[in-house]
Amino acid sequence: MPEWRKDPLVDRWVVIATERGKRPCDFKVVSDEKKGGRCPMCPGHEKDTPPEVTAFRETGSRPDTPGWWVRVVPNKFPAVRIEAQPGVRRRGVFEVMDGLGAHEVVVETTGHDTGLEFLDERQVEEVIWAWQQRSLDLRKDARFKYIQIFKNFAQTAGASLEHPHSQIVALPMIPPDISEELAGMKRYAQNTGRCLICDLLEQELGEQERIVQESGKFVCIAPYASRFPFEVWIVPREHQHDFGGIRADQVPDLALVLRATLRAIHDSIGRPPYNMVLHTAPVNVADTIHYHWHLEILPRLTVMAGFELGTGYYINPTPPELAAQVLRDQETFCPPPVYQQTEREVTHYV
Amino acid sequence: MPEWRKDPLVDRWVVIATERGKRPCDFKVVSDEKKGGRCPMCPGHEKDTPPEVTAFRETGSRPDTPGWWVRVVPNKFPAVRIEAQPGVRRRGVFEVMDGLGAHEVVVETTGHDTGLEFLDERQVEEVIWAWQQRSLDLRKDARFKYIQIFKNFAQTAGASLEHPHSQIVALPMIPPDISEELAGMKRYAQNTGRCLICDLLEQELGEQERIVQESGKFVCIAPYASRFPFEVWIVPREHQHDFGGIRADQVPDLALVLRATLRAIHDSIGRPPYNMVLHTAPVNVADTIHYHWHLEILPRLTVMAGFELGTGYYINPTPPELAAQVLRDQETFCPPPVYQQTEREVTHYV
Repeated sequence: MPEWRKDPLVDRWVVIATERGKRPCDFKVVSDEKKGGRCPMCPGHEKDTPPEVTAFRETGSRPDTPGWWVRVVPNKFPAVRIEAQPGVRRRGVFEVMDGLGAHEVVVETTGHDTGLEFLDERQVEEVIWAWQQRSLDLRKDARFKYIQIFKNFAQTAGASLEHPHSQIVALPMIPPDISEELAGMKRYAQNTGRCLICDLLEQELGEQERIVQESGKFVCIAPYASRFPFEVWIVPREHQHDFGGIRADQVPDLALVLRATLRAIHDSIGRPPYNMVLHTAPVNVADTIHYHWHLEILPRLTVMAGFELGTGYYINPTPPELAAQVLRDQETFCPPPVYQQTEREVTHYV
Repeated sequence: MPEWRKDPLVDRWVVIATERGKRPCDFKVVSDEKKGGRCPMCPGHEKDTPPEVTAFRETGSRPDTPGWWVRVVPNKFPAVRIEAQPGVRRRGVFEVMDGLGAHEVVVETTGHDTGLEFLDERQVEEVIWAWQQRSLDLRKDARFKYIQIFKNFAQTAGASLEHPHSQIVALPMIPPDISEELAGMKRYAQNTGRCLICDLLEQELGEQERIVQESGKFVCIAPYASRFPFEVWIVPREHQHDFGGIRADQVPDLALVLRATLRAIHDSIGRPPYNMVLHTAPVNVADTIHYHWHLEILPRLTVMAGFELGTGYYINPTPPELAAQVLRDQETFCPPPVYQQTEREVTHYV
């Protein structure tokens, strides 16, 4: 019998197929063909991008030249613009405002072919430091209320360039996914005096069946109401509402857990397309202390179709208990991926 | 300068690229390869599906034999099950219930290769009657609170069988997308004494620039805060909260507008993958009269990526004004589609 499971944070129910849960081999993993051509993110091509916002680079090397190991540039085709003005205009039932925001790209390494999961630990730490630095800098602009850090890997997950990179979008309003999570956490705190995610972690650590990785400062879980097969969240053990407040003693630990998790996904499923989204407290607004930041990794093995788009609910053919076991054991259930665009298996009967 | 536009119904902002909006030719349309093999929905193969729930068929023909023109069957691999029991169980922070629901498939025609947009008008009417009949029948089960009717066309939109069909899922709770829309419409009615969608239609008809089609009883618009390129909504002109209440004088008109809209999408874009979702009032609950049902058609030319999954906001590279103009004029901006799985162009720079 399938189960409806409710996300503890928001009003989102997910149908979990509890019988015959789909293992990695039951999905056809779509990997991208190698593209070739000139890569605007490779060292020596710094002039192909807008001038860098910041870079971690060798002492004495000049901006927009080689010598960097992590480089942040404005998106060449930004979805939103920093020079826009805030202020909502209303026309009848419609509301509109200029496309205010910031849109940056974090080039995670000089190596065109070295995915985040294969970087050395120190380099993953540097990427995390870049995320934090941009998050802290962008919030100095009081017009911004949320800093969304995310990563798209492979075309099926929305990436069009293959050089390892992540993205940062600063937004002039708090997105609904975050405001709903924050409202849920506030309500819980008012009712219990505790943090919902701290309690959730305690329960997960007690039950153990959805734990993927544990380290001193972070826990990786397959969430109880996972929307996607092999979805995992990396959560700081201690209550911390704002990713921007991550400390020097946490970063190496996060780098280790993040890299190990991505490696487990790579090794068990075979380099699937994935999105990674960082959920953290809004900025430049009051009363966000009840939030508990976390990093969500969302492999894209199924298609979001009419059911998901019509309702906001999800159907997940892989129970998170199975996902956690597969990722923990790192069994290779699949043959090595074939690097070409192949037809993708679809989860539903129709 | 791009624009942030707010959906009038819910808290959802969309970035609309207002300059250099993407026309059909700017997207690579992914069409499916012909699959071949035995189709469980073709006449003569009725035993390949579970026994039919209902069918419109020739007098004297027996169930589960040929002679039908529209046929409704239970999904062979249902996401949810009618034999489950309602009732939420709680374990710590988690809530779960049995996978209660119904999951049916509407076979829209006997013709394996004749898409909804190429059926004759009378046949499209029959499909609409089948949707209505199932909606009215499923709500007799008081455990169900919402009947989601939807259609996935082509693999990229989640379909795995190519024979034209739609799906119906009956749910034991009101999905968040509907409860938010309903709450928005209630609030608007309390503040103004009017219906939000009736007012929206009036404004759209006045401004004209997002109108795709008009008929006596229905209007097709490209919504102001469209999430997807070439997204369109078909809306009844008169206030009607419940699709189940559609009348005999409305059905032929809806059939005409629906078919013409799908044809315009087919002719202008070249048979793109799409989802269609019917948004209507919940059932078996009080106080839904302020809802105004509508049919959303969502072409899948872009990828929902980290930004969309992290925030609940969308980036749309095609302004709805351009979409409406393209669909109205039915200019063929694109060469005829090639029917094979091809690499898909991705909208964002990274």
